[in-house]
Amino acid sequence: MFPPEATEIAIIGSGTIGLSFASLHLLTHPLCTVSIFDTRPDLSSYVHKYLPGYLGRTADADNIKYLDRLVIATTLKEAVESADIVQEQGPEALEFKLSIWPQIELYAPKTALFWSSTSGIPASKQTARMRDPSRLLVVHPFNPPHIMPVLELVPSPTTSQTVVDQTMSYWRALGRSPVLLRKECTGFVANRLAFALFREACSLVAQGVVSVEDLDELVTTSMGPRWAVAGPFKAYHAGGGEGGLTSFMEKIGGTVQGCWEQAEEDVVAQGIVVGGKWQAKVCKQADEAYGVVDTAERDEKTKRVLRAIGRG
Amino acid sequence: MFPPEATEIAIIGSGTIGLSFASLHLLTHPLCTVSIFDTRPDLSSYVHKYLPGYLGRTADADNIKYLDRLVIATTLKEAVESADIVQEQGPEALEFKLSIWPQIELYAPKTALFWSSTSGIPASKQTARMRDPSRLLVVHPFNPPHIMPVLELVPSPTTSQTVVDQTMSYWRALGRSPVLLRKECTGFVANRLAFALFREACSLVAQGVVSVEDLDELVTTSMGPRWAVAGPFKAYHAGGGEGGLTSFMEKIGGTVQGCWEQAEEDVVAQGIVVGGKWQAKVCKQADEAYGVVDTAERDEKTKRVLRAIGRG
Repeated sequence: MFPPEATEIAIIGSGTIGLSFASLHLLTHPLCTVSIFDTRPDLSSYVHKYLPGYLGRTADADNIKYLDRLVIATTLKEAVESADIVQEQGPEALEFKLSIWPQIELYAPKTALFWSSTSGIPASKQTARMRDPSRLLVVHPFNPPHIMPVLELVPSPTTSQTVVDQTMSYWRALGRSPVLLRKECTGFVANRLAFALFREACSLVAQGVVSVEDLDELVTTSMGPRWAVAGPFKAYHAGGGEGGLTSFMEKIGGTVQGCWEQAEEDVVAQGIVVGGKWQAKVCKQADEAYGVVDTAERDEKTKRVLRAIGRG
Repeated sequence: MFPPEATEIAIIGSGTIGLSFASLHLLTHPLCTVSIFDTRPDLSSYVHKYLPGYLGRTADADNIKYLDRLVIATTLKEAVESADIVQEQGPEALEFKLSIWPQIELYAPKTALFWSSTSGIPASKQTARMRDPSRLLVVHPFNPPHIMPVLELVPSPTTSQTVVDQTMSYWRALGRSPVLLRKECTGFVANRLAFALFREACSLVAQGVVSVEDLDELVTTSMGPRWAVAGPFKAYHAGGGEGGLTSFMEKIGGTVQGCWEQAEEDVVAQGIVVGGKWQAKVCKQADEAYGVVDTAERDEKTKRVLRAIGRG
């Protein structure tokens, strides 16, 4: 079932995450076939229009060898009935997840793995109406998954170890970077971390300390490159010299605590909640600074960074 | 005075930041001379032992052309008396800053710029005993400054615009990335942002959601590369498609707010303050995962990332 063996993958939901995952499987696993299912009536023409962009091959001839292994399914049953892996990226609504999994369970082979790309609905909630909840876990990507290597694997307490192990093996065989969370938690880890920094960023712009554009410039020339090479713990552990993170906290701890306390005060004083008065100001600055972002250029640059750190 | 003109720079304080800055000036400004002053008795042998490592040239012959432009000063007066720029990285203690600047002011030319590398003591506090406080601003690096392009320029309300402009021009001429803050604030911006994410990281490890090493792996394969290419605002603005950050907040705002609220609850529940019970666990995991970090390897990798984003 797993690379280098032939694998059948059913992609449920053909939005940007679905197409990105479809291209990832096709590009990195030469023995896979991918079936896509979505309820949109123009599914076939839509997929054939947009998927080549994700495959990144400009010549039609180069795309054919990938598209040859693609099936446009006309029913959910057709998509999943011989699948080894069913990967769901439908609407982010609990009712949708609750209703789709029992249907998938009905049609899919008994051994198929069930993955949800949700960014917020834990597996333990999605499985409520399934006969066998041990087959499902969250496999949360960082957008877009055909570029970004990370995958957060978030099993529920009832997900079987075998399912987790097979999921890990699959992604490792494809050269990706699966990270297993030990517990379900709100938002999972990547978004929790990113949103924590984002909140502080919004607070500092709201206070008029720095502009949106200057803050971004600052991050791309400091934390960004640093954390592409060493995560926050390793970076501060290195900063502590031979005494590691313990020394770092002894030497810099006062400054760290001062920043944490000031951040809390400022977030309250500025009313940094989603939809607060600060939001229009920040969004306006982003509009003025960036207009519509060229994501193709961003993705090319990201690939260069990933190659530079041995991840691309 | 400024590149490509000859510039004399006095480096006060010969710790790692001082040596890193000395090497940065020598390497990137061929017409500069650098004088170093520190009260340590072995200053000359110490600088000649460690500075070549920062210059990054392995052959002694290659280092000579840089070291030819270096002066080891035996007094503060000698270091600053013909300086165009005085760059201070002494102890992080207000009393030290308060006492050193009037001495520097006494000996340095009237037109010299005064820069403090402090990570936490704002210019408005450092200048209390100076005759002319308009000459001083904070120029805060991201360690190590000879590698990382960013410099946070943090003037006090009394710093003159000319001094700010000249400081900007100098760093731009050297190809660095100076970012001007509009107001003094606790911890300045880079550390505020990084510590906000770090707090959330500590909280998630303390809760047992993820290990130190897995969290670092996750950051180096997601936010790190992303933020090396586009800062948080630009990244989310792109994530919102044509509607930009406004659309992003409309679509994902609920998830963002949910994460912010959960983060606040968890930080309280886990007692995430510096010196809290969680700290030993996190530090132990860092020790076990990393031992002593090879910063030379980190710096080489960082240079590759910076070249990949056109900043190196």
